[in-house]
Amino acid sequence: MLSKVLIANRGEIAVRIIRACRAMGIKTVAVYSTADRQALHVYLADESVCIGPAPARDSYLNTTAIITAALGCGADAIHPGYGFLSENATFAKMCTDNGIIFVGPRASVIDRMGNKSQARRTMMDAGVPVVPGCRESFHDAERAKAAAADVGWPIMIKASSGGGGKGMRISESSEDFIEQFNIAQRESINAFGDNTMYLERAVIDPRHVEVQVIADNHGHIVAMGERDCSVQRNHQKMIEESPSPFLDGETRQRMMEDAVKAARAVGYTSAGTIEFLMDKDRNYYFMEMNTRVQVEHSVTEFVTHRDIVREMLCIAAGEELSFTQDDIRLDGHGIECRINAEIPEKGFLPSPGVISQMHLPGGNGVRVDTAAYDGFEISPYYDSMIAKIIVRGRTRTEAIAKMRTALEEMVVVGVSTNLDFQYSIMENETFKAGLADTSFIEKFLRGEV
Amino acid sequence: MLSKVLIANRGEIAVRIIRACRAMGIKTVAVYSTADRQALHVYLADESVCIGPAPARDSYLNTTAIITAALGCGADAIHPGYGFLSENATFAKMCTDNGIIFVGPRASVIDRMGNKSQARRTMMDAGVPVVPGCRESFHDAERAKAAAADVGWPIMIKASSGGGGKGMRISESSEDFIEQFNIAQRESINAFGDNTMYLERAVIDPRHVEVQVIADNHGHIVAMGERDCSVQRNHQKMIEESPSPFLDGETRQRMMEDAVKAARAVGYTSAGTIEFLMDKDRNYYFMEMNTRVQVEHSVTEFVTHRDIVREMLCIAAGEELSFTQDDIRLDGHGIECRINAEIPEKGFLPSPGVISQMHLPGGNGVRVDTAAYDGFEISPYYDSMIAKIIVRGRTRTEAIAKMRTALEEMVVVGVSTNLDFQYSIMENETFKAGLADTSFIEKFLRGEV
Repeated sequence: MLSKVLIANRGEIAVRIIRACRAMGIKTVAVYSTADRQALHVYLADESVCIGPAPARDSYLNTTAIITAALGCGADAIHPGYGFLSENATFAKMCTDNGIIFVGPRASVIDRMGNKSQARRTMMDAGVPVVPGCRESFHDAERAKAAAADVGWPIMIKASSGGGGKGMRISESSEDFIEQFNIAQRESINAFGDNTMYLERAVIDPRHVEVQVIADNHGHIVAMGERDCSVQRNHQKMIEESPSPFLDGETRQRMMEDAVKAARAVGYTSAGTIEFLMDKDRNYYFMEMNTRVQVEHSVTEFVTHRDIVREMLCIAAGEELSFTQDDIRLDGHGIECRINAEIPEKGFLPSPGVISQMHLPGGNGVRVDTAAYDGFEISPYYDSMIAKIIVRGRTRTEAIAKMRTALEEMVVVGVSTNLDFQYSIMENETFKAGLADTSFIEKFLRGEV
Repeated sequence: MLSKVLIANRGEIAVRIIRACRAMGIKTVAVYSTADRQALHVYLADESVCIGPAPARDSYLNTTAIITAALGCGADAIHPGYGFLSENATFAKMCTDNGIIFVGPRASVIDRMGNKSQARRTMMDAGVPVVPGCRESFHDAERAKAAAADVGWPIMIKASSGGGGKGMRISESSEDFIEQFNIAQRESINAFGDNTMYLERAVIDPRHVEVQVIADNHGHIVAMGERDCSVQRNHQKMIEESPSPFLDGETRQRMMEDAVKAARAVGYTSAGTIEFLMDKDRNYYFMEMNTRVQVEHSVTEFVTHRDIVREMLCIAAGEELSFTQDDIRLDGHGIECRINAEIPEKGFLPSPGVISQMHLPGGNGVRVDTAAYDGFEISPYYDSMIAKIIVRGRTRTEAIAKMRTALEEMVVVGVSTNLDFQYSIMENETFKAGLADTSFIEKFLRGEV
């Protein structure tokens, strides 16, 4: 087993990983920016190392500083969490080159799935459904436009290196194609330093349904059910649930099989997520693979009664998965709400500041993951998440009722939050009926649902 | 289903029941004493009624005030929680007489199990093992002493109406018998207004192992595994775990069967607990039945993934149990620590006062049940519990490690707590080895374990 793990992250996921390590008897090393001196993950870890000033590029993205810290502390592994360096193949390779285990898939796999157009081709070859579109990628607007005619409008123009909704534009017809292509390409160059684009038929108001997979180094791959993450604002998930209220058993089965197929095609190891778009007829298409633990992994843990982070650490140590596909059953219904310091009425404008007081919900079937506490500052430098509230009920209706109570119980003083906004979604008829797709929040804000 | 439930209790159990009702869409009525005006259960309920001043006899034990409140609010059921009126057969009957459902067993069953010597006889007749002793009960010390010779010393002198360690004394030999009998009898008269006593062979340093049962009105009785509650101070449980580290599978099976037998013998319905004493050779003896939900029910919920309070409400509404014996499996290992406002070094002296700040632990496999919050006053009028921390791990070792982390994360400012004391138990070798019996805390305080 691993003896000491450095956590190359901050916030609730750093706390989550430290807790898992402690339960397993693994020593932990926290790294932190100067802005995070008072952070909970620093307090909870056995050791901690300051790796630079607040902007992430000078600290949490500073690969050299992190590797140096790991070597200095004698850590035998690094868990990257999500965001920051978690999908950075170069960093994963740096770890390996320095004799440190990277808790995640191999660098080559991260690389292969990180390039969206290449991932798309890999999935096509593996027989996993992808959105109809072009197999090749483009650097030039005119050449792309010529190919676009075969795809048919509306068309989605996407950055090969994209992610998080960046470098992505819809073209409604041949008229606006060049313009939208140029906008998306410019965004891609700015965000990813890459001008490679590809084209897909646009799926209108799809659902976002993803399958959690986990694989060890002994050839075992298990699909841990799906999550429905259709409730998003600005391509950022706000609510995730498992199972999806939209799936039937047969489609679920096929999606899980396709997710395993996808993971097997790339020789995947560790925890990962295959994200699918799903249209109104329950056709689903591979969108991308996240080669890391996700924010919403906790909702899967709550309905499968498994510990994904623990498994990741075991897999990294060379152990076999502690369960098989047959052990996975979704027990009841789980929902997660992300509680953010933000102002929903102002386009979800972040609301950084000091949390002067906080009260957390609890009880049967309620889980809270947070790195915040009374006096903690939500820094403008990082994402605005305060806590994840996860509930489990026997049915979706019960889970929604539990979430309502949990949101009502939660108190955050000092910063604006989306607590009331989340509560109003729990009361919304479209959401309650399980009919929310990715256009839900926009329509909800316009009073159309 | 029930439409409106009055909760005749306070503190974390009142909050627990309100949360369960809300998840089921049942309206709730809180009752409160003047000292509890600011209590969380009052805030969370749909309606609330003040039922009198702080001493429990003037409010939470005021049966007339509570029944009046229930009738006034149109509640169709009353959940008594634990303590207070939960094992008061007269109150249960008052409910029924007023057309209100009492969420618990029938009054006659409470009565029958409430009389400890009668319960003992009932169990003997049902073939459930009881501690060797006298079948009859006594009012006179000399007559009891004559019978005591047949039982053999050391002997336990117990109040028929007893409970919570009151009216209970050990006699080491015939010399001290009369003295101990008189002390125990006087305690019984003071506490229960009853001078009836009975005799049992004293089991030295036993374990306390109890089986959770639940039964509906359709003849289904399910044993939900056992809890080991051997870590007690002054006959008050401090730590509870499930499964017991001391049991083997065969003994567990027999205990569960005997518990179901016991429940069936009295026509039990609702949730209840059969408490057993267990000696070093794993012989177990019926001690008493608690005809109500217990503080530690949550640890069973955590390892069985069931909701005991929800089932109680369904059973009260006439529904069948939502699971069968075959559905019950103990998944991993659960531990609960009761966090009290008290001073362990001073004989666990209560430390009432205002909690100026509180931080709760969380994450995967951690459940917190509390009615406290920043600014909440732990009143000298009621028990000193601040919160229950419940953890679940794959193994007992993992659960202990998780509890250590949870205790370390928890912060309570303003009152003294047993957090450090609980932490030191989690680090104790005897406890870690699963060897703690009911003498553990005493020995621990003396530095003998």
